[in-house]
Amino acid sequence: MYIVGLMSGTSLDGIDAALVRMNNRGLKTETEMIDFITHPFPKDVEEEIIQSLSVNTSNVQLICSLNFKLGKLFSEATKEVCQKAGLPLKDLDLIGCHGQTIYHQPLQEQNMVPSTLQIGEPAVIAYETNTPVISNFRTMDMAAGGQGAPLVPYTEYVLYRSESKGRLLQNIGGIGNVTVLPKQATLDDMYAFDTGPGNMIIDEVCRQLFHRKYDEGGEIAKQGHVNEELLSHCLSHPYIMSHPPKSTGRELFGKQYVENLLKKFETVPGQDILTTVTMFTAKSIVENYRAFILPKTEIEEVIIGGGGSYNNTLIEMIQSLLGDSVTVLTQEELGFSSEAKEAIAFALLANETFHGKPSNVPSATGAKKAVILGNITFPPLKGSR
Amino acid sequence: MYIVGLMSGTSLDGIDAALVRMNNRGLKTETEMIDFITHPFPKDVEEEIIQSLSVNTSNVQLICSLNFKLGKLFSEATKEVCQKAGLPLKDLDLIGCHGQTIYHQPLQEQNMVPSTLQIGEPAVIAYETNTPVISNFRTMDMAAGGQGAPLVPYTEYVLYRSESKGRLLQNIGGIGNVTVLPKQATLDDMYAFDTGPGNMIIDEVCRQLFHRKYDEGGEIAKQGHVNEELLSHCLSHPYIMSHPPKSTGRELFGKQYVENLLKKFETVPGQDILTTVTMFTAKSIVENYRAFILPKTEIEEVIIGGGGSYNNTLIEMIQSLLGDSVTVLTQEELGFSSEAKEAIAFALLANETFHGKPSNVPSATGAKKAVILGNITFPPLKGSR
Repeated sequence: MYIVGLMSGTSLDGIDAALVRMNNRGLKTETEMIDFITHPFPKDVEEEIIQSLSVNTSNVQLICSLNFKLGKLFSEATKEVCQKAGLPLKDLDLIGCHGQTIYHQPLQEQNMVPSTLQIGEPAVIAYETNTPVISNFRTMDMAAGGQGAPLVPYTEYVLYRSESKGRLLQNIGGIGNVTVLPKQATLDDMYAFDTGPGNMIIDEVCRQLFHRKYDEGGEIAKQGHVNEELLSHCLSHPYIMSHPPKSTGRELFGKQYVENLLKKFETVPGQDILTTVTMFTAKSIVENYRAFILPKTEIEEVIIGGGGSYNNTLIEMIQSLLGDSVTVLTQEELGFSSEAKEAIAFALLANETFHGKPSNVPSATGAKKAVILGNITFPPLKGSR
Repeated sequence: MYIVGLMSGTSLDGIDAALVRMNNRGLKTETEMIDFITHPFPKDVEEEIIQSLSVNTSNVQLICSLNFKLGKLFSEATKEVCQKAGLPLKDLDLIGCHGQTIYHQPLQEQNMVPSTLQIGEPAVIAYETNTPVISNFRTMDMAAGGQGAPLVPYTEYVLYRSESKGRLLQNIGGIGNVTVLPKQATLDDMYAFDTGPGNMIIDEVCRQLFHRKYDEGGEIAKQGHVNEELLSHCLSHPYIMSHPPKSTGRELFGKQYVENLLKKFETVPGQDILTTVTMFTAKSIVENYRAFILPKTEIEEVIIGGGGSYNNTLIEMIQSLLGDSVTVLTQEELGFSSEAKEAIAFALLANETFHGKPSNVPSATGAKKAVILGNITFPPLKGSR
């Protein structure tokens, strides 16, 4: 079965579209990523999305119209990824569309009830592509009392759980986050927590000292030396050794943190600072494994995703800190793609719903039970029942 | 198959829920209405709906939360009508929910594209009732280039088309509207137009002269006499004899029209005025039949729906004007209900979608082709595929 997964994140970079071939379902799912594109938003649509996100600038007409506009753009992204892969649209079997989240309220607030709102009209996508669409994945989990997020745990379980290997899925976005998948795990054996900073400190140092957005390929960090005093200072941050469950955000390791650091260590050369915060990021990840995961769970592989997987210096540091008994791999080395991860996840969730199977993880979202996520919209000519 | 149809109209009276038994589909559909209720909106929800309708008072948080609140209320209406009928919820097979329209923009306006927005989260309805839900009927017709309305023609075709009788479906709401269903009609043989005033003039005269909202059962009109001069004046309105297709709204026969009438005929007793405008309403309907329908189409039955079907004086006038060759019936006499008409329509449209069949009428909505309306949301335990 050929499925396109569509995701449009809060960063508003555009629509991620992954074309995958998928057979079977559940743990028997065979997944192969065929192609991936990011379809950028036209400037005016990006502005309308930003308007729609805020209580002060949103209104019903804007949301009504934008829902249809985004439906059109999701269908264009679908056509583009199929064309790039050389797959005729008529051979596409299913689309799984996360949509664009414009509001997410996990908890009651005054007279506003827990609820979530994704837009990108599935009827428009189904009509324009002539393909069945599964969409609105988060609402059913919330109807069942969950927070509607995270929905990735089920997909990580299906894609990475192994009969013979314990695996860690390390995401390195702004923040570092690890999902633990013991060998032969059940869904209940999985757990996840934030390890600490991801690219956040590295990127901020790049901006302040090198006027670059990030350290491409880790090239700058590769040329410097670790300053042990700075490294010790960083590692003394109480978050690193605090016990999971734990989660962090931009407030602990953001701009203010880096400004204080640069002031305190202003005599250290810029290159060495970048090398040292890269090592700190690697160590914060590995120290968390050593303290909280490795003592109780046998781990053979660490699979790294997110923007940080493209920082070769960071990856090499992690591998070197872990030693030879653990293999560090990137999503790309497994035939996936860090960029495509979420789009692939929604292709996989669509596949489950298409087979009438639940795919939320109640222990992750807080839902009262496992439920079938999303609804299905039928195109005019094929997919009739 | 037991189906609940749910409708919540722009009048904000509450949620109409009709429980029907339906077998087969298309022209073979057998429909029996089992029960009907109107579930009123709590005052605060009604106020939130009103807020959500306007560009000035709506916002994304309100719409996100209200979508879930209405989902809950639609599920309560479903439970209530099943309980009233003594049907255990577990025996309910399907729900068709129109939802609450909060915006409908059939045509492009500046940078806002043609679009429509109905809310009342189907995941909440499906979860709370444990029943599959078909919802969002209008979006696919708009995706196909239609105006998303009217959707009733298909349901009228299925419910009233006859092999042996030509039928007129006369709706008497504020405005009068007739749908023509010739004997052995195809969908393309159907057509509809506004005959002129429905209850609009009668109700406004009641308010101004009798301080009542309407003439209950036609009791006041029954006691007066027709004033021929006033009647001739009314019948001279150019709308009555103008050629279909034609449509009218509140602007032609509204408050201003009645005020002018009462001023010009201030010497006529109030009761006679009411009797005369009731006769005018009857005549405007029947004259339209005589001029534009009966010369070319054989008609055996006129089936009257809408609030006007409860005005016995009006119905008797229509019957008497038509003579014995045509039988005038109300929805109630056929086992249906004027109040329940739209809720039944969405049960029927859900039935078609559940069978994978299109149910818009492109000649009525302007869509480029027939499409499958709505999407399906599956409950946690039954309805899995």
